[in-house]
Amino acid sequence: MSRKLRMGLVGGGPGAFIGPVHKMAAELDGKIELAAGAFSQSAERSRAAGAGFGIDPARAYGSYAEMMETESRREDGIDFVVIATPNHLHLPVAEAALGAGIAVMSDKPATATYDEALKLEAVVAKAGLPYGLTHTYAGYSLVREARALCASGKLGPIRKVAVEYLQGWLSRPVEATGNKQAAWRSDPALNGPGGSIGDIGTHAFHLTEYVTGLKVTGINATLRRVVPGRRLDDDCDALLRLGSDASGTLMASQVAAGERNRLVLRVYGENGSLEWHQEDPNSLSVKWMDGPEEIRHAGGGYLGADALAVTRLPGGHPEGYIEAFAVLYREFAEAVTAWKAGKADVLPATLPGIEAGVRGMRFIERAIESNRLGSWVEF
Amino acid sequence: MSRKLRMGLVGGGPGAFIGPVHKMAAELDGKIELAAGAFSQSAERSRAAGAGFGIDPARAYGSYAEMMETESRREDGIDFVVIATPNHLHLPVAEAALGAGIAVMSDKPATATYDEALKLEAVVAKAGLPYGLTHTYAGYSLVREARALCASGKLGPIRKVAVEYLQGWLSRPVEATGNKQAAWRSDPALNGPGGSIGDIGTHAFHLTEYVTGLKVTGINATLRRVVPGRRLDDDCDALLRLGSDASGTLMASQVAAGERNRLVLRVYGENGSLEWHQEDPNSLSVKWMDGPEEIRHAGGGYLGADALAVTRLPGGHPEGYIEAFAVLYREFAEAVTAWKAGKADVLPATLPGIEAGVRGMRFIERAIESNRLGSWVEF
Amino acid sequence: MSRKLRMGLVGGGPGAFIGPVHKMAAELDGKIELAAGAFSQSAERSRAAGAGFGIDPARAYGSYAEMMETESRREDGIDFVVIATPNHLHLPVAEAALGAGIAVMSDKPATATYDEALKLEAVVAKAGLPYGLTHTYAGYSLVREARALCASGKLGPIRKVAVEYLQGWLSRPVEATGNKQAAWRSDPALNGPGGSIGDIGTHAFHLTEYVTGLKVTGINATLRRVVPGRRLDDDCDALLRLGSDASGTLMASQVAAGERNRLVLRVYGENGSLEWHQEDPNSLSVKWMDGPEEIRHAGGGYLGADALAVTRLPGGHPEGYIEAFAVLYREFAEAVTAWKAGKADVLPATLPGIEAGVRGMRFIERAIESNRLGSWVEF
Amino acid sequence: MSRKLRMGLVGGGPGAFIGPVHKMAAELDGKIELAAGAFSQSAERSRAAGAGFGIDPARAYGSYAEMMETESRREDGIDFVVIATPNHLHLPVAEAALGAGIAVMSDKPATATYDEALKLEAVVAKAGLPYGLTHTYAGYSLVREARALCASGKLGPIRKVAVEYLQGWLSRPVEATGNKQAAWRSDPALNGPGGSIGDIGTHAFHLTEYVTGLKVTGINATLRRVVPGRRLDDDCDALLRLGSDASGTLMASQVAAGERNRLVLRVYGENGSLEWHQEDPNSLSVKWMDGPEEIRHAGGGYLGADALAVTRLPGGHPEGYIEAFAVLYREFAEAVTAWKAGKADVLPATLPGIEAGVRGMRFIERAIESNRLGSWVEF
Repeated sequence: MSRKLRMGLVGGGPGAFIGPVHKMAAELDGKIELAAGAFSQSAERSRAAGAGFGIDPARAYGSYAEMMETESRREDGIDFVVIATPNHLHLPVAEAALGAGIAVMSDKPATATYDEALKLEAVVAKAGLPYGLTHTYAGYSLVREARALCASGKLGPIRKVAVEYLQGWLSRPVEATGNKQAAWRSDPALNGPGGSIGDIGTHAFHLTEYVTGLKVTGINATLRRVVPGRRLDDDCDALLRLGSDASGTLMASQVAAGERNRLVLRVYGENGSLEWHQEDPNSLSVKWMDGPEEIRHAGGGYLGADALAVTRLPGGHPEGYIEAFAVLYREFAEAVTAWKAGKADVLPATLPGIEAGVRGMRFIERAIESNRLGSWVEF
Repeated sequence: MSRKLRMGLVGGGPGAFIGPVHKMAAELDGKIELAAGAFSQSAERSRAAGAGFGIDPARAYGSYAEMMETESRREDGIDFVVIATPNHLHLPVAEAALGAGIAVMSDKPATATYDEALKLEAVVAKAGLPYGLTHTYAGYSLVREARALCASGKLGPIRKVAVEYLQGWLSRPVEATGNKQAAWRSDPALNGPGGSIGDIGTHAFHLTEYVTGLKVTGINATLRRVVPGRRLDDDCDALLRLGSDASGTLMASQVAAGERNRLVLRVYGENGSLEWHQEDPNSLSVKWMDGPEEIRHAGGGYLGADALAVTRLPGGHPEGYIEAFAVLYREFAEAVTAWKAGKADVLPATLPGIEAGVRGMRFIERAIESNRLGSWVEF
Repeated sequence: MSRKLRMGLVGGGPGAFIGPVHKMAAELDGKIELAAGAFSQSAERSRAAGAGFGIDPARAYGSYAEMMETESRREDGIDFVVIATPNHLHLPVAEAALGAGIAVMSDKPATATYDEALKLEAVVAKAGLPYGLTHTYAGYSLVREARALCASGKLGPIRKVAVEYLQGWLSRPVEATGNKQAAWRSDPALNGPGGSIGDIGTHAFHLTEYVTGLKVTGINATLRRVVPGRRLDDDCDALLRLGSDASGTLMASQVAAGERNRLVLRVYGENGSLEWHQEDPNSLSVKWMDGPEEIRHAGGGYLGADALAVTRLPGGHPEGYIEAFAVLYREFAEAVTAWKAGKADVLPATLPGIEAGVRGMRFIERAIESNRLGSWVEF
Repeated sequence: MSRKLRMGLVGGGPGAFIGPVHKMAAELDGKIELAAGAFSQSAERSRAAGAGFGIDPARAYGSYAEMMETESRREDGIDFVVIATPNHLHLPVAEAALGAGIAVMSDKPATATYDEALKLEAVVAKAGLPYGLTHTYAGYSLVREARALCASGKLGPIRKVAVEYLQGWLSRPVEATGNKQAAWRSDPALNGPGGSIGDIGTHAFHLTEYVTGLKVTGINATLRRVVPGRRLDDDCDALLRLGSDASGTLMASQVAAGERNRLVLRVYGENGSLEWHQEDPNSLSVKWMDGPEEIRHAGGGYLGADALAVTRLPGGHPEGYIEAFAVLYREFAEAVTAWKAGKADVLPATLPGIEAGVRGMRFIERAIESNRLGSWVEF
């Protein structure tokens, strides 16, 4: 029996939905434990959050810098840091961690700006440490199945993609009425220049490239600030080019009233197509030109190895968002363990890393530029 | 008891899916009978088709001109003409009919080109005769419900629309292997300059304006010829502006392998949204910011008057495409009857007419221009 | 071109949902026309209904006896009678028609009682005339596909069936407040002894035997009168034995508040199962032990010949209840035409006839007896 | 910060799906840790399993008796035992634990026989210790919503229930070919006299009473051994009486080929009905007589307090089986903590306990008796 990896969390304190989710996901498979945290910039609130998480009070820090410094000197110091802060801190925290020899698992988007992403890419490369990015949806077993299906060529050459990520929670100006999640996301200084395009558009973008294996090569986007007074886009529609021959649409909106967390990907090849809905993640529709529609269900013995490798339960026992998230943590933990064993280039292809991070930030930058020009831009 | 209106069909002969559908739809409510036809340009084939339809052999004509001339002189001549030909004949047939004092029900798109549509608009105005356009999907009861819901303001100001019309039947070059439907649609001389954008994009466009009550004011479209050698677009993605404040996306594709006839409309307002699927036409999803999702089912006593007015069966007894089509025929028949009774301006607001026809042709023309420029164009 | 068959309708007058549906369904394929009717027992109301249907006033009769007598003497007399009356008239009308040499298409259940059904069976046999029964749901293309799938043996030996037909419209005592449909159905003298078990249970029963090819051999049923004061059952649950080895459940209720017309059949074999929902009739789920679920969509080129033979529209263009009904009329018309041409034994196996009618009445009788005993009865 | 409760697991070793699930569910909310186990009757295999679970090797025992004895003497001994063995061990393990002053969380069914259940009831009562039963499905937030909806009376008096739990994994004799899960479940000595009726029928039964608040008062059941040579029922259909006025059906089958884990509950009241599917657990359909169908989605702010109390994620982020299971563990942990603080009668009404256990065993016994008699039996 090997010991659990120790994780330190930056951010994710009071009022943050994502902190407890990180903990549940990281610990689900029994290979990781939350051991330390800089949960808040207030030492007091950080300690309170640490108590809530059940960690050693001495390891609830008032700043991430202090955490890196102290933990890197402990015998039982943390093995990796999770960054769950507003975007403007993603780069400095990652730099501090990597500088202290600590691996990094970061919330997306990788940084606040594209320039920062390029900088971080260099820092990661130099550090040689595992860097993972929590594009959570990449952890669903049927996303893995969809990815394998595209790679298999059975759908034929991919011609068309339709991806959308629609939420409604910003349909009204809740950032002005005390919603902390909305507040920092609506502030360019904390969030970076991309609003919905950064917060959820990057997920849609990543999922598209992740599943199809194609790279987006052009974009023609429209960004809007639908709610009066809002400083960042809350709605985005875009046309895409993928590779040399495919095209597509991408919608990302946080003012789509009535929607919850509607992330949907469709991929059309010459012979058939696939469709996956995040809100119904345990089924994958595959429609063929020449036969009945197939519904592949999570846990089915007929699924490919990639899907089954990340399946915990028998068919018909739903796995959800936390389980998908935990898949990324499992793969990241394996990478950290491998790195500790002296292996380089340890990140598996299935786990989003800094390359995906740079792509995502480029996507935001290109979408904003396309919107400014009102036309296509190269990618 | 009043007599049935007599209808003459142009086109719709052997091999055409749409001919028998017109007959079934027109006759469903017992107010119309197919009495004559120029089903084919070959007199012999026209007679054979007429026999199949069970009409008087003397009234199966070898040309539409002959039909107009002969029927307009008969005591029991046709009351209106249905145009179910390839697009390039829409204008001349309509002109011939209106010139002979015969009302017109035409397949969409109204004409082959935008210039023709403007010409036809003038002809219709001058003739003062009823002119209807078979945007079939406008006949579904829950499309009427959706339209009334938008008009009611309950969704709040409309901010966003997502419409798509996806088919897969042209995923392979079937026009080269004997599919007559595909053949004329792939020939610019018979079809006009818009391929998928004209054949199904116009349906999506019409449905959007019909349900929301908004006019499209800008478009940024990409048209593609996915199948090598094809002369017209078989795939289109577009960004839309609607009215002054709303935006949206429109997808139309005939190479979306695996799709059958996926016409879906979503409308997002400040307070909630609606979603309707043509392939599941008897339910309408309405999602509210502040309450549960509603599923409104066709035939429900809680539906609005517009929906119930076009409902034939009790809830749970599915109505389909033919029934929706028949709604348009019913409304057209009432318009013809009113016109015969001397009433002007007889087309009900719920029945698409020449105005919708001109809008649709403008849509095609603008989409092509936008595609050429790679940017937004005004509408 | 052959002439249309002429149909006379008994019942289906003012207030009856089913009269106009019979007309639309019968006439849909252009082979039948409504020519006469005894729509009401009041001559005046019958004439009014006839005018609404657009038939010759002279052929709107005040009694079915008069209709049979007069029509059987006309050169252009009716070819067949449709019986759309309350159940107690099914037998006498059928006898009168068959006695006059006129074929019969009857609403289900075949008669009011099982004894009457046996009598009718003899009458039909002696008459040698086509007799069809409107188990409408047998007309859906995917019911035909399901039937062929069971017959093919691909599901393996059938082990289990779950069928249900649930409505909610009698959840309150609407028969006491002017609902004519509810009134006669709640009156044993007009309806016969089976309430929901007769009105909709027989549909569920028939669909089960029709699709599986198995005969019900035992039943253990509970019938209830849920709404106080009601004289006939409005709710029924039953256990079934089918053939020698299979079993199942059957639910029929008209007090299932919130349901519209939920007829669902599931069939489980050793290798897989099928599921069909009448309210979503254009898809059929087939689930395999060893592979993905299949969704077979109406109109798909991969469907069997039986399904495609009764499909009018391309995939994705929904067909509904009227179209399914029209399939039965089409098959009945072919049988009448064949009979007129001197062919015996003309009813195709796909069209329910007197045998199905006797089975259905036996089902009602056995269910009532089982309920009385509180235990299993042989069938 | 209070320490985590320590849990000891009996069973759940190699090849058992349910062992790791118990661990993940118990630990999800950070209040419990797996500290000890008797995972197998082989000390060696138990140690291997313990290593896999990451527990102290000294606390992986070769027998549950040894675990109880040793742990009850440790300062840091386990706070409760989880019983995840074949059914015949449920009673002896529970007795041993309770006898050692250790609380019990047991897999269902509570025991192997009804007599054992009565005995266990007395043991639990005497011990005064928390005893929970893992009817997992009671932990879903929308099951709590459904329960609250029934209790609210808004559906009106409950008249009808339809519950089903269908699986297909025993459609073939896998117990003969090395499937350990199937093997013990097919052996009366290890499993008790109820096959599918015990393994999954009890879940369906419990869910029905749990949601409706009604007690089953009569049953008329048919049990079958569909697969030749099987010694216990693998398929069951039953008619139910609930309270004084309601009725229903219950289906439980493990030979429903193609089904995965289809647990569905429908409840019909006078005013409306509800429907919940375990395989799609995050939506609850509520259908009203007089208005549109409602879909209540997990996480919706409009849900009742009971549902929201057991919701971890925002709407649209699916929670699944592990999360539902974890709800039961959370409530059980609270009960154990309260008991340690000296509070009696600590089990919350939402957590199934020994009463539910006795009811479940009574259900099995009554179903078998009813099947033997072929008729209704009182409950």
